[in-house]
Amino acid sequence: MGLTPRQEKIAGMVKTLGPITGEQIAERLNVTRAALRPDLAILVMSGLVEARPKVGYYYTGKNIISMLTEQVSRIKVKDVQSVPVVVTASTSAYDAVVTMFLEDVGTVFIVEPGGILAGVISRKDVLKVAMGGSDLHKMPVKVLMTPMPKIVVTSPDESVLTAAKKIIENEVDSLPVVSIADHQDTKTYEVIGRLTKTNIARLFVELGEGRGGEHHG
Amino acid sequence: MGLTPRQEKIAGMVKTLGPITGEQIAERLNVTRAALRPDLAILVMSGLVEARPKVGYYYTGKNIISMLTEQVSRIKVKDVQSVPVVVTASTSAYDAVVTMFLEDVGTVFIVEPGGILAGVISRKDVLKVAMGGSDLHKMPVKVLMTPMPKIVVTSPDESVLTAAKKIIENEVDSLPVVSIADHQDTKTYEVIGRLTKTNIARLFVELGEGRGGEHHG
Repeated sequence: MGLTPRQEKIAGMVKTLGPITGEQIAERLNVTRAALRPDLAILVMSGLVEARPKVGYYYTGKNIISMLTEQVSRIKVKDVQSVPVVVTASTSAYDAVVTMFLEDVGTVFIVEPGGILAGVISRKDVLKVAMGGSDLHKMPVKVLMTPMPKIVVTSPDESVLTAAKKIIENEVDSLPVVSIADHQDTKTYEVIGRLTKTNIARLFVELGEGRGGEHHG
Repeated sequence: MGLTPRQEKIAGMVKTLGPITGEQIAERLNVTRAALRPDLAILVMSGLVEARPKVGYYYTGKNIISMLTEQVSRIKVKDVQSVPVVVTASTSAYDAVVTMFLEDVGTVFIVEPGGILAGVISRKDVLKVAMGGSDLHKMPVKVLMTPMPKIVVTSPDESVLTAAKKIIENEVDSLPVVSIADHQDTKTYEVIGRLTKTNIARLFVELGEGRGGEHHG
């Protein structure tokens, strides 16, 4: 919050002595009650200090950042995800790239029948192969995709914050949003969405402009 | 904030009748003062309602989202930007892509002497040309770059929020961070940084985890 030294001092005082009235704080700081008012207003607004009429000020330890954390952690992947763009494993690398351009996406998911996630391919993957002089027409997308189980995934009910951390930590541009099903001993991942850095940047803008509450509240 | 119906009702009451004491609110709602305490605490915490000892509760119209907006709008591009990766206009498209891979970036800036921005090239741009079967070795990067003045730029002191909006609205992955100089009638843009969707996603994670205040406060 960027508190001033006096605000820090008042917060400390409320923490050790609270509940304490404005008059008592003013007396200890040797200032008037009126001079203190803006500082107290900021401390209350920040949530760090709470005021209870006829009792006084007391310390909560909460602040705007921790409230923000609470707020943001409530937004789910399903609230911001995009539709997935998929091809089958027998598609040529060339056709997979054509799909990328037609759909204007940076990542295409490779699926088996039933929409089960088998692989992921990005612009970077294809560019690397294209630079090597390979003929993309003759190459099935299967050859150059990142296959399961190496793919980092997210689910509709995961918090966007957790999913965003996965994107950053694994240095990928997007995550497949999957629905996990158990089939005897094996788990299958049905692709039902796509979470991208663009989704996150857009959410950042929405939250920053104060529109986050409307859509995700 | 996701207020409960009763909290909404109390907020409305404070808005029209404030300043109003907790006792008066309790009386109007026909509940005890104690039953009301958690709701009032949440309204004060949210910033929507402010409490002033010995006066009562009054309406501020501010809420956590508007405080968040204030907080976020103070973070500048220079607080989160990455270093720019640049090549000269005579570089071949092939070598520009090699630079992309070596530096692991999705966008390379093309500069004139003095680091003056001349163009931008992305993975998508190169992939399109590679798919068309052109020989990237023989093609100067100049031929396929997006040239000035078509490039959307940002500056170190612009708010990250404004810059993020430019990224979303112009559907680009990154913006060159430039320092603008006037030379008689013409402006030149010296490239001094790079703002990417990754920078924004990382900031989102930092803010969401409550680490934003430390670095950008």
